Amino acid sequence: MGIDKSKLQPLKGFRDFLPEKMIIRNEAIRRLKSVFHKYGFEELQTPSVEYQEVLLGKYGEEAEKLIYLFKDPGGRDVGLRYDLTVPLARVAASNLNLTLPFKRFQIQPVWRAENTQKGRYREVYQCDVDTIGSSSPISDAEILAVVHDTLKILEFPEFTIRVNSRGVLFSSMEKAGLAKDKWLTTIQTIDKLDKKEKSEVEKELSEKGLDNEQISNIFIVLEDAEPDDYLKKVFEIVQSMKLDQDHIIFDPRLARGLDYYTGPIFETVVTEPKIGSITGGGRYDKLMKSLGGPDLPAVGTTIGLDRAVDVIEDLGLWKNIPSTNSQVLVTIFSPELENNSLSVTEKLREKGINTEVYLNTNVRLDKQLKYADKKGIKWLIVIGPEEVEKNTVILKNLETGHQEDIKLDDVVPKINNG
Amino acid sequence: MGIDKSKLQPLKGFRDFLPEKMIIRNEAIRRLKSVFHKYGFEELQTPSVEYQEVLLGKYGEEAEKLIYLFKDPGGRDVGLRYDLTVPLARVAASNLNLTLPFKRFQIQPVWRAENTQKGRYREVYQCDVDTIGSSSPISDAEILAVVHDTLKILEFPEFTIRVNSRGVLFSSMEKAGLAKDKWLTTIQTIDKLDKKEKSEVEKELSEKGLDNEQISNIFIVLEDAEPDDYLKKVFEIVQSMKLDQDHIIFDPRLARGLDYYTGPIFETVVTEPKIGSITGGGRYDKLMKSLGGPDLPAVGTTIGLDRAVDVIEDLGLWKNIPSTNSQVLVTIFSPELENNSLSVTEKLREKGINTEVYLNTNVRLDKQLKYADKKGIKWLIVIGPEEVEKNTVILKNLETGHQEDIKLDDVVPKINNG
Repeated sequence: MGIDKSKLQPLKGFRDFLPEKMIIRNEAIRRLKSVFHKYGFEELQTPSVEYQEVLLGKYGEEAEKLIYLFKDPGGRDVGLRYDLTVPLARVAASNLNLTLPFKRFQIQPVWRAENTQKGRYREVYQCDVDTIGSSSPISDAEILAVVHDTLKILEFPEFTIRVNSRGVLFSSMEKAGLAKDKWLTTIQTIDKLDKKEKSEVEKELSEKGLDNEQISNIFIVLEDAEPDDYLKKVFEIVQSMKLDQDHIIFDPRLARGLDYYTGPIFETVVTEPKIGSITGGGRYDKLMKSLGGPDLPAVGTTIGLDRAVDVIEDLGLWKNIPSTNSQVLVTIFSPELENNSLSVTEKLREKGINTEVYLNTNVRLDKQLKYADKKGIKWLIVIGPEEVEKNTVILKNLETGHQEDIKLDDVVPKINNG
Repeated sequence: MGIDKSKLQPLKGFRDFLPEKMIIRNEAIRRLKSVFHKYGFEELQTPSVEYQEVLLGKYGEEAEKLIYLFKDPGGRDVGLRYDLTVPLARVAASNLNLTLPFKRFQIQPVWRAENTQKGRYREVYQCDVDTIGSSSPISDAEILAVVHDTLKILEFPEFTIRVNSRGVLFSSMEKAGLAKDKWLTTIQTIDKLDKKEKSEVEKELSEKGLDNEQISNIFIVLEDAEPDDYLKKVFEIVQSMKLDQDHIIFDPRLARGLDYYTGPIFETVVTEPKIGSITGGGRYDKLMKSLGGPDLPAVGTTIGLDRAVDVIEDLGLWKNIPSTNSQVLVTIFSPELENNSLSVTEKLREKGINTEVYLNTNVRLDKQLKYADKKGIKWLIVIGPEEVEKNTVILKNLETGHQEDIKLDDVVPKINNG
């Protein structure tokens, strides 16, 4: 290439997805979309590049350092999409005829110059599901149902959707005797309870100016806390849905660090394998407006698509997923019989069978078989002089090794029935 | 937003795709993939951001001005993907175990700072289909078949796939008495025959140093030209396929400006509506190596997905495509009957019906109906006190206006049968 060999690999934090990986990714996306559609969410896509004015001042100083900012060839100050919430606010602000409530999902990459040593990607497919324009607890319950159904349809063996609400946290702070200006900062520290020891959290609270009585009060109060009225209503609706209720628990210690939540908050923890949180969300009734969108209530969740696909691959969750979409390879016995193979190929394709014909002539049959094997194509067809004479084909199942000499008309049902 | 209102719109040349548009785009992509899989092509995806060393020196000076180049937050010189061929070469170079022939398709955006006044987009979804590692005319024929089936499955009423080959053009130049060093530049001018008057093309050839006899010879020779042996073989295979042969013609005047083609070249012209070329490709046996990939023969095509979708929308080609994936809206008659509506919603979703429940309470029924109408949801369900008593629901078809009072169990078959 005349270029440094290391630069033939994708940039750090970026990945090529070869066909075998794409089959799993596409299947995951297909399943996710079926859940979103079931609940009436529709797809939105927005541009990869946005004005810096749209991107900046939204995510906080630390996050902004991670945004890919640059000048476009026309000299405009632009940047790559950093999340899917800011574009949603922009779309809502610029489409005043949007039918409300607007229930949308969006599955697109975002770019963040994360530290790749932590195993993080810089181009990540995010998957957001949100309802804007509804204050009904039904819309919160639907987001919980979507999260539940998503992890079920992806076949995750174990997961827990933790649910709490800002109201529960705030009233607990009040009961524990904290001044109002300490509430948010205390929540941010409590949020670390699932990653840090309780003693470390206590130390951090003490550093933030809470006295020992307040600290011990907080833990006692949170232990006894109960859902507020809004959250109770959400749980009632969730309980009327045919969900596996064991997966959904009220957890008054769930805090979530971000300060824009205004009502219920949710987070899904996957315990097998121990990958931590895989979805996170909540109600954020003031955020759309603060991002420049209309003044609309909103509730939603992010689902970590890349992380989910990693788990599916690492655990081999999907045993029966093929490594190729091609169902059969038609070999070419000899240059003289090429037309016979082409004619069989044509007939199979016409019947809706995804069919490859071996693409080079004068190649030994065992090498053609090896191609099918390497790609994971299940069926192989051979048409030699005898088969031409008898008007049959040899159909071989490469998984079982079984082969038979059959009429072409019988091939299609064999392949379709596995 | 505190920001300039003009910046609430996407950047020039970029677009938001709202749900109604996404349904058409997704359906187009679904159809395309079904064709690609039928012929054994598998999906590849590559990163949006590449090293500048990978991107530069590949497209020519004029094109390079259009590339989005910048420094990433770590100070690396990078840029946005400009096409899908260079990434394919990089993937082939860095994955030495790739099973060959490698038949891949790729549908991803590319970024080009084109002049938007010409109606061009700066973020364009390209769709490339290529086979690398085969010198067989079967692989050329398969690309032609893919193009044919793609435009058929997209329901284009009229299209012509023009086919020629570099061999035909070169031997015509030779017959017309041109020195070898004039061949490529002459081809580049002849390529303009479908956009410019013949007299203009003649003038340009004259400016390039061809004498009058050579110029008139070229047109005579091209008129009488016949396919070379390789192209004849491709046509034989194409004729053995069950394609609508009227759509595929040998056109010795088809040139295609790019200089990397080494064998057959193809281009599809759509005449109704007159949008010009919608696919273009050919055999390029030396390109992979020159781009830094392995020394492999290759043949393929680009399909202009955005342009195709524009045509489908502009001509309203797909009459029966719904504007929403939601099949039914369950209204809420009154706060007291909310649970009844939720229970019906739950049952429909369980049966695989994409169901919305109206998300705010205390809203008049006519406003709820308007929501369904605006979104294009076909079915409406009302459950009032009488229906609760009788254990029925009112099912209304919003397209015909017809409504009936039926048992819930009878709703699912009604909706599924249209």
